Amino acid sequence: LADGPTLGELGEHPFLRALCARIRARAERVPRTRHTAQLLVPPGDDCAVLAPSAGKLAVTIDALVEDVHFRRAWLDAAEIGRRAVAVSLSDLAAMGAVPAWTLVGVMVPPELPASFLDELLDGCATASEQAGALMIGGNLTAAGALTVTVTAAGAVEDRVLCRGGAAVGDALVVTGTLGGAAAAVAAWSAGTAPSAELRARFTAPAPRIAAGVALARAGARAAIDVSDGLLADLGHLCAASGVGARIERARLPRLTEVAALDAAGSDFAASGGEDYELLLACPQALVARLDELANESGVALTVIGRCVAPADGIVLCDESGAPHDVRASGFDHFAGRA
Amino acid sequence: LADGPTLGELGEHPFLRALCARIRARAERVPRTRHTAQLLVPPGDDCAVLAPSAGKLAVTIDALVEDVHFRRAWLDAAEIGRRAVAVSLSDLAAMGAVPAWTLVGVMVPPELPASFLDELLDGCATASEQAGALMIGGNLTAAGALTVTVTAAGAVEDRVLCRGGAAVGDALVVTGTLGGAAAAVAAWSAGTAPSAELRARFTAPAPRIAAGVALARAGARAAIDVSDGLLADLGHLCAASGVGARIERARLPRLTEVAALDAAGSDFAASGGEDYELLLACPQALVARLDELANESGVALTVIGRCVAPADGIVLCDESGAPHDVRASGFDHFAGRA
Repeated sequence: LADGPTLGELGEHPFLRALCARIRARAERVPRTRHTAQLLVPPGDDCAVLAPSAGKLAVTIDALVEDVHFRRAWLDAAEIGRRAVAVSLSDLAAMGAVPAWTLVGVMVPPELPASFLDELLDGCATASEQAGALMIGGNLTAAGALTVTVTAAGAVEDRVLCRGGAAVGDALVVTGTLGGAAAAVAAWSAGTAPSAELRARFTAPAPRIAAGVALARAGARAAIDVSDGLLADLGHLCAASGVGARIERARLPRLTEVAALDAAGSDFAASGGEDYELLLACPQALVARLDELANESGVALTVIGRCVAPADGIVLCDESGAPHDVRASGFDHFAGRA
Repeated sequence: LADGPTLGELGEHPFLRALCARIRARAERVPRTRHTAQLLVPPGDDCAVLAPSAGKLAVTIDALVEDVHFRRAWLDAAEIGRRAVAVSLSDLAAMGAVPAWTLVGVMVPPELPASFLDELLDGCATASEQAGALMIGGNLTAAGALTVTVTAAGAVEDRVLCRGGAAVGDALVVTGTLGGAAAAVAAWSAGTAPSAELRARFTAPAPRIAAGVALARAGARAAIDVSDGLLADLGHLCAASGVGARIERARLPRLTEVAALDAAGSDFAASGGEDYELLLACPQALVARLDELANESGVALTVIGRCVAPADGIVLCDESGAPHDVRASGFDHFAGRA
């Protein structure tokens, strides 16, 4: 940890005044989309006030809690902030929304140096701005464990991508690669350091904003972000849509390292969560356009299976076509991995 | 604590499904203002999606942390939820905004029964609805300490009440009474039970929505909610406005019990926080209308002093006109009371 004065030594209010000044300065030079929030009253008052926005408003709240979602030994301060914002922006991506603003609530152990909090909040602001959103304010309080709660809001211009729109016969498509974040956590948990490539999958997930927007516009019927694990989140999508699913294990997109681990008996791609990729259900007519949409979105789009009749359930197939047995299937915060 | 299964025993996802169904059902029968959020996609998806809203959007995030802001022995589950929502709605009131929606992020120790969380979230939904807002979603995670983070959004129709608008000569006005919440906390901290009247000041603060709207419309120039303590929050308002203030201690509105305690040497009304009343700066021409505005708002409005030249600082006067010395002046989360 960096040295330096704590918040108790600096004083909460002087720290907050400096922070608000920095947020106001950032707000003037952030690259904007046409949905980026326009601040009428900047942070430092009782509320931030925004100009009226166009379109429907998608909103979400999510939190990262130390020793539940991450350990401080795994991530530096800026990475904690960036990851916390990315997790909430990923929910916007899964609706096909364009980010507009974020609000960040931080609970911080009093013994942490103020510089740590500065870096964390810079990470939050940077991740917001990279997605075209403005960090418009927040809240700060003392607590035993470091936690970062992010409310994110965005505009839906076209169709809203809900979980419940998938139809039997739809292609199931995922963005990017799966299992890397879980493989990094497994390495840390085993006391070893993950490779830089795996580490980045956990520390710097990229919310798939462009893919969500492009696929919503192109006619995708349903989406969810993969936070609990592919099979768990597929289960949520299928339950909401009233369909089953048949996934081909060999088609799951993986980094080379994850492919090797899964070949050796793990199931990171199928059941590891926290990659924050999107899982989408698309009419088969859209499959021919996926390369073009992948180019437009800047991320790989891979067909991993299809929606089937609900009575057929959710099946993960081996290359032989036989059902593959997966033990773990998603994260329950209150029970550990099921 | 109530008995019953924990979230770990019930399963997080079944609990959440039932919760979302309840929120959807409540949304259909909540009393609405013209700014109440209209849900296009209800909770249970990646985001809630709202119909476009009229007016400027005021947004805020605030949090209650167990053993920092409250103890579980002081409040029952529903009161914790209601207070958490009231604290954020109070920020909207201080801007003259009309509440539209709330998002609630809860961190909960795994050993708490699910019924406790049900009651807490019912408290959140009830407090939102009483202010014309819809609880549109939330987040749930395990953590060591119980915390409730509430994002609240509202519409500003007329003028925005900022902290920085006060002018020299303005009357300083507060809603309701001051010091009751601090007196309740002092009683608990001394190991005694506060009276029902004092207890209610802490457990059930009423966000002064109607007063904020009415006074913004009538021409009040600045406002802040009294969360850190009158003198501390007055300091924030004066600093933002570039004015000083002269407050008459005898005019501070107090419950009888608080008046007796303050007469005996305490300073609950001047420096105790957490009442969530509003402090407003009003042109003197507005003073003659305060009775009418108090009737309209359903809460007492009391002139407690006036804004003076910045060089005169902030002075709390005794009945003789002499400056009154106050030791405590507001809450710093990281340093304890200053």
